Amino acid sequence: MLLCDIGNTSYTFFDEGTIKRYDVASFEPHTLTQEIYYICVNEKIKNLIETFEHWHDLEPYIVRENYYETMGIDRIMACEGVDHALIIDAGSALTVDIVKHGIYCGGYIYPGKKAIEACYENISPALAYSINFELELDKMPKNSQDAISYGYIKTLQSEVEKHNLPVVMTGGDAKLWKHIFCDASLHENLIFQGMKNIIKKVKRC
Amino acid sequence: MLLCDIGNTSYTFFDEGTIKRYDVASFEPHTLTQEIYYICVNEKIKNLIETFEHWHDLEPYIVRENYYETMGIDRIMACEGVDHALIIDAGSALTVDIVKHGIYCGGYIYPGKKAIEACYENISPALAYSINFELELDKMPKNSQDAISYGYIKTLQSEVEKHNLPVVMTGGDAKLWKHIFCDASLHENLIFQGMKNIIKKVKRC
Repeated sequence: MLLCDIGNTSYTFFDEGTIKRYDVASFEPHTLTQEIYYICVNEKIKNLIETFEHWHDLEPYIVRENYYETMGIDRIMACEGVDHALIIDAGSALTVDIVKHGIYCGGYIYPGKKAIEACYENISPALAYSINFELELDKMPKNSQDAISYGYIKTLQSEVEKHNLPVVMTGGDAKLWKHIFCDASLHENLIFQGMKNIIKKVKRC
Repeated sequence: MLLCDIGNTSYTFFDEGTIKRYDVASFEPHTLTQEIYYICVNEKIKNLIETFEHWHDLEPYIVRENYYETMGIDRIMACEGVDHALIIDAGSALTVDIVKHGIYCGGYIYPGKKAIEACYENISPALAYSINFELELDKMPKNSQDAISYGYIKTLQSEVEKHNLPVVMTGGDAKLWKHIFCDASLHENLIFQGMKNIIKKVKRC
């Protein structure tokens, strides 16, 4: 079963554990003949592949009322990938979503690493440091780099820990955050897990 | 006793409870004849007023080893204004500093309101909202504005609460944060309180 996650700049195929990512500019859906299940946030591509019979959009099988209106389908699909967890998706934005016993409870958005570094630099060139993920979090900082790193990392950690839920991490910067959430599990294919779960549900009905 | 806090863009006089702020461009120190105690982060002005005998810089009376090297004199002076508290100075950056029984324990830097709003907007125009300080913090968010507001506010609140210290707030956005830290005391003249404490100490020696 071939799965595909189509974003604005790249699309990713998942074929029984093998992941391949391509640039959206090179997207040629007509060259593929097998059955493909996909999600797509790229409106242009969405309109194109709707005309291909063997491409199946999974978005209509989502119960949208369980989520919120402006929530992206990729973030929803990650939530469908767990039953009971706090999900951290660390990309250009860092999203935190909570699913309890299969029910979505809400979530929030925190800046990603690059975004917060630019934010501090914009406040003052004296704060133009990279975030130090190896910072000791049980001590209050006494230098500028640690002061911004602690401000970014420890605040999030304090909120996440309050929920007392198993933490699942995904996204490009997940490995960096593994220093902070040591007990978290890393799940690079969480979106595809969600897609598989949806397909299973649909086939049962 | 006239106190003056000189910044990069404005200078502020404190005269027994009365505060007056002026633009740095209009600064004419030679027109004042009484004794003035000041702190100054503006190098150009610092060099000028050093030549005036009745202007007294309080910075040399600070024990700098108690703080960290790159810490601004205004932030230090706010710390000198309390004996045992967590200080939130909410300006273009939001600084959190801890003083326990007169000893500085360290602090961190978080983006101010405007800076974080710009940060979210830079991640995506879909996140271009103003921070909602009236958000319910005991519920996980289910819309984009609340998702960024919670991400900004609740994370900081969670960290601050862990210290279990009295909270003192100062800075231009302190009133907004009063919705979040309900038990905190607002101290608009904290820097001047610190300056008064230093003067008292110096006079005792």
